[in-house]
Amino acid sequence: MTQETSDRPRVIVREVGPRDGLQNARAVMATADKLAWIAALVAAGLREMEVASFVPPALMPQMADAAEVTARVRATHPDLHAVVLAPNMKGVEAAIAAGATTIILPVSASEAHSQANLRRSRAEQVAAVADIVTRLHDGGPGRPRIEAGISTAFGCSRQGVVPERDVIDTAVALARAGADAVALADTLGYATPRQVRRLVRAVRAELGAVPLGNLHLHDTLGTGLANVLAGLEEGVRGFDAAHGGLGGCPFAPGSVGNVTTEDLVYLLESEGFDTGIDLDRLIRARELLSAGLPGEALHGRVAAAGIPPTWHMAG
Amino acid sequence: MTQETSDRPRVIVREVGPRDGLQNARAVMATADKLAWIAALVAAGLREMEVASFVPPALMPQMADAAEVTARVRATHPDLHAVVLAPNMKGVEAAIAAGATTIILPVSASEAHSQANLRRSRAEQVAAVADIVTRLHDGGPGRPRIEAGISTAFGCSRQGVVPERDVIDTAVALARAGADAVALADTLGYATPRQVRRLVRAVRAELGAVPLGNLHLHDTLGTGLANVLAGLEEGVRGFDAAHGGLGGCPFAPGSVGNVTTEDLVYLLESEGFDTGIDLDRLIRARELLSAGLPGEALHGRVAAAGIPPTWHMAG
Repeated sequence: MTQETSDRPRVIVREVGPRDGLQNARAVMATADKLAWIAALVAAGLREMEVASFVPPALMPQMADAAEVTARVRATHPDLHAVVLAPNMKGVEAAIAAGATTIILPVSASEAHSQANLRRSRAEQVAAVADIVTRLHDGGPGRPRIEAGISTAFGCSRQGVVPERDVIDTAVALARAGADAVALADTLGYATPRQVRRLVRAVRAELGAVPLGNLHLHDTLGTGLANVLAGLEEGVRGFDAAHGGLGGCPFAPGSVGNVTTEDLVYLLESEGFDTGIDLDRLIRARELLSAGLPGEALHGRVAAAGIPPTWHMAG
Repeated sequence: MTQETSDRPRVIVREVGPRDGLQNARAVMATADKLAWIAALVAAGLREMEVASFVPPALMPQMADAAEVTARVRATHPDLHAVVLAPNMKGVEAAIAAGATTIILPVSASEAHSQANLRRSRAEQVAAVADIVTRLHDGGPGRPRIEAGISTAFGCSRQGVVPERDVIDTAVALARAGADAVALADTLGYATPRQVRRLVRAVRAELGAVPLGNLHLHDTLGTGLANVLAGLEEGVRGFDAAHGGLGGCPFAPGSVGNVTTEDLVYLLESEGFDTGIDLDRLIRARELLSAGLPGEALHGRVAAAGIPPTWHMAG
């Protein structure tokens, strides 16, 4: 399905199902099921993946095996760019001990979301990022790559509109704090295409040499792939997505989660980009996801309708 | 929710639920329920609507009341641009007798789809359109507006890829046959954004003075709104959509139908266009749709998740 070599421009799809997806799942997936599912995703061609979140197990039992999953993934899939999330220094230390080489530190653009999610103000979390980077720097050249992820960058369920100036200022502060990349996350799925274009352009212009990370989009309002298209048009070449569209909030009826990886790959390849991912195998890997999370509703239109007969001609 | 007057560019949303939607519904909606639903859609601000299809009732019992619905809609909503579909002269005559002023004549770009849907070749149907237009012309200046709708313009489940040249040639032949407008329909939902851009541009370039009609998109593969965005970028200012995302094929598991009107309005208004439609009232009108079609699955992300708190700032 996917050509081995290609002159088409490359787009990176980062799978976030094992982290963002499972965090919001109704049930806890067993460690062995997680590892089998991750292996199937790697076999389908995924080369970047968020595999765990280093948060207190009491708060998030789905991530209680973060250290084991991270260590096993690093040992089994050495070529996979395995990424983990950690909200603070304690989580960062545990992530490094487990072998993580890229760590995402979350920062909320919305003050209300920051208090609810991290129990800190936005300024306090930016300062925490600076402190973590400094302490890791002192550790020498072996330090992990630190990505700062700005959540609620396109709006917040509590605060409503998040001013673009707040997002830009937060991005610049995180770059100054020493983050290796700064990413924009549409945590609620409120982003619109013109907002994506405007914010990507504005943040890039002010970030200087620090790269803009993957665009992290949710599909709450059906605008996920339209926002991807807007991002592509602005030159974004990295997107997060969750297999089976995992990530909806279990407490919000009708909500759906991250952009579905299967649908994203279908769109990107149709648009002439090379993802390196085999869509057939990616769809078949849903069986492992369902087996590990019985009863969880999976999303995704391409898997439901089947790959169309026009697809082979798309590339 | 929607401003009464606006300097924003206008985009026409044509509701096709009462025709394309109901044609593919599992049950037959009663005439009174259709009229109540249509009235609610008009009250929400819709100004263009496909209200019926003039086909043999034995083939399509959902449309057995086409004449009554058309006549009642024309009498009750004189300002609504009421559109009907008719596949042949017999249907056109019945439509005119019922008071229809705009009639869509369907033509398949795919030869396989043409034989299956109309039991005629593409060339035969183009000739039939020419014949109908000639006979109506002879009837004098009171003739209805004739739109030719090219179905399977972006691919066909039977034929697979439909060559762009076939679509362009069909469009040009229909313009020469005297159609007042020629529209492109993605009957199966296989369109991709770059295909939309390419085909809209190519067809427009060859149509000359005959206008390109609404873009008619389905959301089978989740690309519906991304394709709308591509159409907007090419200057398209008219789109078809179905309330509740009606229109999925009852025999295809997992299939969904037309682009959902509610989600389309959300996207268009977010992008800075004026649709003249009140999104709140449009969502509330789903109750009438559900009442008239008990058990039918409705689609649409904005209705499921609720209008976000960022929305009031979008315009």
